Amino acid sequence: MSTITDELKNFRLSCRECFEHHAKPNLAAWEAQGLVDRDFWLTMGAHGLLGMGVSPELGGQDKPDYRYALALTEEMIAVGMTAPIVISHNDVIASYINLLGTEEQKRRWLPDLCSGRRIAAIAITEPGGGSDSTGLTTQATLEGDHYVVNGGKAFITNGVNADLFVVAVKTDAGARGQGISLIVIERDMPGFTRGPALKKLGWHASDTADLFFDQCVVPKNNLLGRENLGSYYFMTAMTRERLSISTVAITSAEAMMAETLSYVKQRKAFGQPIGSFQYNRFLLAQLDTQIKVTRSYLNEAIEQFNAGSLKLEDAARLKWWATEVQNKVADECLQLHGGSAYLSDSSIGKLWVNSRVQKIYGGTSEIMLEVISKSMGL
Amino acid sequence: MSTITDELKNFRLSCRECFEHHAKPNLAAWEAQGLVDRDFWLTMGAHGLLGMGVSPELGGQDKPDYRYALALTEEMIAVGMTAPIVISHNDVIASYINLLGTEEQKRRWLPDLCSGRRIAAIAITEPGGGSDSTGLTTQATLEGDHYVVNGGKAFITNGVNADLFVVAVKTDAGARGQGISLIVIERDMPGFTRGPALKKLGWHASDTADLFFDQCVVPKNNLLGRENLGSYYFMTAMTRERLSISTVAITSAEAMMAETLSYVKQRKAFGQPIGSFQYNRFLLAQLDTQIKVTRSYLNEAIEQFNAGSLKLEDAARLKWWATEVQNKVADECLQLHGGSAYLSDSSIGKLWVNSRVQKIYGGTSEIMLEVISKSMGL
Amino acid sequence: MSTITDELKNFRLSCRECFEHHAKPNLAAWEAQGLVDRDFWLTMGAHGLLGMGVSPELGGQDKPDYRYALALTEEMIAVGMTAPIVISHNDVIASYINLLGTEEQKRRWLPDLCSGRRIAAIAITEPGGGSDSTGLTTQATLEGDHYVVNGGKAFITNGVNADLFVVAVKTDAGARGQGISLIVIERDMPGFTRGPALKKLGWHASDTADLFFDQCVVPKNNLLGRENLGSYYFMTAMTRERLSISTVAITSAEAMMAETLSYVKQRKAFGQPIGSFQYNRFLLAQLDTQIKVTRSYLNEAIEQFNAGSLKLEDAARLKWWATEVQNKVADECLQLHGGSAYLSDSSIGKLWVNSRVQKIYGGTSEIMLEVISKSMGL
Amino acid sequence: MSTITDELKNFRLSCRECFEHHAKPNLAAWEAQGLVDRDFWLTMGAHGLLGMGVSPELGGQDKPDYRYALALTEEMIAVGMTAPIVISHNDVIASYINLLGTEEQKRRWLPDLCSGRRIAAIAITEPGGGSDSTGLTTQATLEGDHYVVNGGKAFITNGVNADLFVVAVKTDAGARGQGISLIVIERDMPGFTRGPALKKLGWHASDTADLFFDQCVVPKNNLLGRENLGSYYFMTAMTRERLSISTVAITSAEAMMAETLSYVKQRKAFGQPIGSFQYNRFLLAQLDTQIKVTRSYLNEAIEQFNAGSLKLEDAARLKWWATEVQNKVADECLQLHGGSAYLSDSSIGKLWVNSRVQKIYGGTSEIMLEVISKSMGL
Repeated sequence: MSTITDELKNFRLSCRECFEHHAKPNLAAWEAQGLVDRDFWLTMGAHGLLGMGVSPELGGQDKPDYRYALALTEEMIAVGMTAPIVISHNDVIASYINLLGTEEQKRRWLPDLCSGRRIAAIAITEPGGGSDSTGLTTQATLEGDHYVVNGGKAFITNGVNADLFVVAVKTDAGARGQGISLIVIERDMPGFTRGPALKKLGWHASDTADLFFDQCVVPKNNLLGRENLGSYYFMTAMTRERLSISTVAITSAEAMMAETLSYVKQRKAFGQPIGSFQYNRFLLAQLDTQIKVTRSYLNEAIEQFNAGSLKLEDAARLKWWATEVQNKVADECLQLHGGSAYLSDSSIGKLWVNSRVQKIYGGTSEIMLEVISKSMGL
Repeated sequence: MSTITDELKNFRLSCRECFEHHAKPNLAAWEAQGLVDRDFWLTMGAHGLLGMGVSPELGGQDKPDYRYALALTEEMIAVGMTAPIVISHNDVIASYINLLGTEEQKRRWLPDLCSGRRIAAIAITEPGGGSDSTGLTTQATLEGDHYVVNGGKAFITNGVNADLFVVAVKTDAGARGQGISLIVIERDMPGFTRGPALKKLGWHASDTADLFFDQCVVPKNNLLGRENLGSYYFMTAMTRERLSISTVAITSAEAMMAETLSYVKQRKAFGQPIGSFQYNRFLLAQLDTQIKVTRSYLNEAIEQFNAGSLKLEDAARLKWWATEVQNKVADECLQLHGGSAYLSDSSIGKLWVNSRVQKIYGGTSEIMLEVISKSMGL
Repeated sequence: MSTITDELKNFRLSCRECFEHHAKPNLAAWEAQGLVDRDFWLTMGAHGLLGMGVSPELGGQDKPDYRYALALTEEMIAVGMTAPIVISHNDVIASYINLLGTEEQKRRWLPDLCSGRRIAAIAITEPGGGSDSTGLTTQATLEGDHYVVNGGKAFITNGVNADLFVVAVKTDAGARGQGISLIVIERDMPGFTRGPALKKLGWHASDTADLFFDQCVVPKNNLLGRENLGSYYFMTAMTRERLSISTVAITSAEAMMAETLSYVKQRKAFGQPIGSFQYNRFLLAQLDTQIKVTRSYLNEAIEQFNAGSLKLEDAARLKWWATEVQNKVADECLQLHGGSAYLSDSSIGKLWVNSRVQKIYGGTSEIMLEVISKSMGL
Repeated sequence: MSTITDELKNFRLSCRECFEHHAKPNLAAWEAQGLVDRDFWLTMGAHGLLGMGVSPELGGQDKPDYRYALALTEEMIAVGMTAPIVISHNDVIASYINLLGTEEQKRRWLPDLCSGRRIAAIAITEPGGGSDSTGLTTQATLEGDHYVVNGGKAFITNGVNADLFVVAVKTDAGARGQGISLIVIERDMPGFTRGPALKKLGWHASDTADLFFDQCVVPKNNLLGRENLGSYYFMTAMTRERLSISTVAITSAEAMMAETLSYVKQRKAFGQPIGSFQYNRFLLAQLDTQIKVTRSYLNEAIEQFNAGSLKLEDAARLKWWATEVQNKVADECLQLHGGSAYLSDSSIGKLWVNSRVQKIYGGTSEIMLEVISKSMGL
């Protein structure tokens, strides 16, 4: 146990070094251009922050323990780094490539993904589809040794930068909600284009784009796992994805609380620190308590995830609740900062806008409630 | 660890046997008379449910692990037993008599308290005092080998039945908020009287009464711990008291959820079970998630309490939040049951009314927020 | 306009005189016995408080303006009088007997109802039926010059005291949700019995009972309005009923606010009035604002009701929201009063328990949301 | 009454024509440049939308009835026009120049302000000052026939474009919270500079800037009203300002509700319109009801304002509550739109971000609660 703790501490220090020195000075520029420089992916790779769970011979570090992912997220949020692009890349590796790939596929893709030479993305959502994955329409037809793919995907994180997309396609047109397969579509495949970077309210350095497939030719050996089992693979992947979003939620809430506590102790109004007003004190006590209660649940979920026992519905519970708390904390911390938090370069302002999409992507709050209530027999 | 688990299981079975067979059939009568029969205290004693943490030679079972108290509470709530009176008795033993008593005092009081021959109560709150313990006015003046006590206490749980009261008195009139001592005042001491049972909105079988001390003579060796250290002793005792109230909160919320889930699956409206309506499904999913999140925090608090590391502010966080969740759950579960839950003999209706006082006694929610915010440096 | 205002003022004075002198001294006794004395109905009649909208020749006062009903409710709530039984009686007169009755029926029933010699009740809800009026099963079969009624009704206000019940029965067994008629069933009709007074969590002086019809014989000329148009008549009646419940909601909230404001200005903790703590000040400001906002909407609804233009959905909006506000106010006012509000004879405690059923009877909050959302085309 | 109604209708048509044809096509460009073109101010002037309450001989239209301002706001919000800059200009005219100006001052300034040749702004807030106007530090010292002003103002709406600023200055350094005067500082006065346009999270076409006064020389006859009465003048002005912000709040909430209702009726998920899901239906019913309840209160406030009887505390109630409702509606409407609402060019997304600052400017929600609770004697 102590070995792990030391390793974990060292890993955290690597994260901190990487983000403090190589991300923080560039964040404003990245936000202005709507994209993190590709070079920084190599830097993260060199610091061992990509694909940590992969075996060393394939470029990873054999650290599947989710507490490493937690530490990575905490350090990203601490400096204001665009967490979703890194988490998405790492989750794609963990939940898809490393889990479902054949030995050949893993050797083909993982070293580059772990070093940061290539960037990964997951593409499930379609325009008009939202959180409903039962109605996917992107079609892949097997023709000899390749698939021909037609359709499109929407709002894809890493959509501009990514080199390798795990794409959910329909391989059995008849089966509603079933007949889904995962294929890996790579940067230069014929018939694959992507739209421009989408301008969003927040997460300005996170590149998001739509994807288009027009008679796109994909080699058959880019199929991930078995045909038509996509929905089944989603289950595992979604559990991790929701845990990751919840990790962003809690660590963001903690970061906002820390910044706000520091602010209200020095900012004065009517001659006293605004943190000394009883209304603010009670409000902060309520929010901080909710953060701590939720952190306790997150820790429990991480233990379960590491043990392979985190249920889909419990990940849904966590995602619903953690993002609720994050948004409540964000809203009140912005209010406590007043007008200056409404400026574009305010860190609290950014965290507030960023928090809002957390209740939408990775399955909306409403989808979470569906999953939870079904598990309760309702 | 497995031994503990087996012991814990057996203890839970004892609780269940005791409450199912000896409490449940009598609850309606006890509620009507506003009092649990003294005989039942002997029954609980015989089942090993009183003063579990006390050493066997003094009548206890050497089970200080709080999970025994948790199991006891769970089993009480499951049958609708009046939990506060038992918890109060046990907490008085654990936090005061067994912790602070001299060997002589422990031998004098604990065997009877563990067997149920005598019932204990804690008396701090004064009329007009509420949650503010800094302004106590009940005075104890040392005269030779006894104290002379004057003043009164309000809303005392077990106030009608108890034989032995741990009473907070002022022994140093000058020191505001300090100078408090704890003395044990027993049933027949001269100058001690009690008011009639107070009729309350809920917890009808819990006996609550005011106490009056008029030149009440108490032997000096009924002083618990050292003089003027009462405020200090409260710290520890309050941590346990708030943990206990939180335990009632969560187990009540869980009981209401279980009963409501069962109800909404069979009760029909407009031709379908009301549990199948999406609004109800989402509502129950939200509430159940909040219960589970809070249970996780409770479990963490119990581990800390057992390790002696549960902080006063974290017990306050838990009490504030757990009682919030309990009341929210109570309100919505009552609503889902509709008009029948508004009848006096409805178990959901009772749990709803009972839940309300949880945000008041043991320190109001506002006091909890004071404690928490102070610990945050606000 | 000034005439109306003077008349209204005088009417309010009559109400106040009646309740202050004839109700207030007896409330505790009435609550203990679970019933308002029949004599008091005569007193109310003598004060002109029953069936105000009825024409003078039939015993009324030709005051259909709803502001009279509002003033009556305000004065009842001010002294803690059991408003629902009076409102129910008056609403039955206004919405059913006086509106739908033939001249003969009105002459037969209204004088006694206006004088308080007879008491009216409305009986729609059935056991197992809740807010769903589409599934009524109480059956009335026309046999010659009378109906034979079989079935039962649940939770009927004035169920113990009433002499005359407007009962919703199925006269066309085939039509689901339709085929409902209203017939007046009187005290001594053969085959009509009632259950004992139901004990409720609150409104202790309001008599509630179940009704049973076993081959109950009702003269055909006790049919109110036309056969099979019951559902249509409900529309109008429900609009008034929901306005009445909203009136209770707002006036109760105002009464609780007034009492609490007065309390927090004198009650001290930590050396200062608890009303001077910022958290309490802000809370009371928030609640009071919500009361005033809602009162504005109530006033608008009353104007519309008087003009005959209050829509069913707007009455539903009002009922949903006003009872939400009432319950929120009740909960916080109880908290501000602390432990003493949890005693049975606390007026805030009573108002808190009373408020809870307002979200259930007269159509649950969920039914209100159904009605509203349907009107929005959802 | 009918004349007014016709005039009001015509005024609304002018607004609509102006914003539909001259604002809507340019909004994207204005948002990109962070500024509405000055030309558009002339267009608004030509349409009679500026300084409506001013007498015709000074360029206005003698329409002080606030319902004209309401109609103007409704039409601005309907097309997404940057309402605060226009409202601020008009409120400055109504509450300061036209109300407090001498005949000479009115003749000097109002014609240009009504035609749109000059733009007005109000400058009270200081850096580090927030909603606390008692601690103003900008100093004006009378030297002969002019004031010398030193200090600065923060977050000033119309800060980039305005030609004429009503500036709150300290003229009596000794009196805390008093000794404030209003002086008009014009574009080219020596020692007056302004900072660059501040980038904000929302309201992108609203120009906001900081102002700096360094030995700024202002003619004595630019004093508005009497010296040292600034705090008193604020009272009236703030009532109107808060009414205006509330008007934006309600009309924005209504606009979001309309757009969302339309969206949820056509957008499908799982094979049905998302507006047909019960959870969404109930949510929309709840929100729409709160909008309507609040609109009722707004209408009452407008009647009172027109009659000169709207109290400061009731404007505070309205502002607190209306902006709460607006933000709740914004948050849920965004959620119902899903991911596409998180794109920068989404109208719901913009309305959501815009709504957030409404709880901050014009006095924060916390200040409103202070004002309200004080008026309640707390």
